[in-house]
Amino acid sequence: METELQAVETAETGDYPVVENDKDYFVEKDGQRFAGMHLLVELWDAENLDDPKAIENILNKAAVAAKATVLHSYMHHFSPYSGVSGIVVLAESHISIHTWPERSFAAIDIFMCGECDPNDSLPVIREGFKPGKIKVDEYRRGIVS
Amino acid sequence: METELQAVETAETGDYPVVENDKDYFVEKDGQRFAGMHLLVELWDAENLDDPKAIENILNKAAVAAKATVLHSYMHHFSPYSGVSGIVVLAESHISIHTWPERSFAAIDIFMCGECDPNDSLPVIREGFKPGKIKVDEYRRGIVS
Repeated sequence: METELQAVETAETGDYPVVENDKDYFVEKDGQRFAGMHLLVELWDAENLDDPKAIENILNKAAVAAKATVLHSYMHHFSPYSGVSGIVVLAESHISIHTWPERSFAAIDIFMCGECDPNDSLPVIREGFKPGKIKVDEYRRGIVS
Repeated sequence: METELQAVETAETGDYPVVENDKDYFVEKDGQRFAGMHLLVELWDAENLDDPKAIENILNKAAVAAKATVLHSYMHHFSPYSGVSGIVVLAESHISIHTWPERSFAAIDIFMCGECDPNDSLPVIREGFKPGKIKVDEYRRGIVS
């Protein structure tokens, strides 16, 4: 538990107030302590990839489904290929999307720290983009033990 | 070369103008065609993790070093742990960062499509955050062949 001691020591120096809320601490799961879970998600044969408003709605709903808090959301609509790059910044990290409508392909990543599980966002992603094929790779970020 | 044919066919339907610029096409490298390169970067024993302005400057310089074009940049400064969540949206995808200054740790991801190579951003990341340890994992997103 060396990592918890480190946080407490810093708090005691007075650099910042000690709070009960430990949302910013690393999480522990299956005996491993780490910063958060990062999913790299690929959608093929997907829909709604050229509509920034629809995409923003889907990503916001996906965040809420994982009990995450949205801080900021930004969508950029490209031309001439109609692709969208979008990002939703969360209190618990972020969701990003980049779409290639001409290939019915989208690359999404969902990074959530704390108690949020990005896998809880996947049903909303599936419902919103209706991919014929989906590939999900899961990475634990910041493993300390 | 089925993927190139598909793009040309769509263009011929008149849904969008045919252009010479092929920046939005998938790239080909080592005989593999894919959407872009995604680096998951972890910094340990790093500096400048609680300064949103410094972080924004470093990420913007990192984007430029890889010849990427910055479209939008957003930093959020948390309390009480002083962590920063930041995102730089690029014409070629994005760079994100989430920092835990109390642990001297940062999780960065750099996703670039087209001809940009996210590895070209790493010297700026090293110079800016001076990590004692850095871990870089590279993934090809949207592999079609």
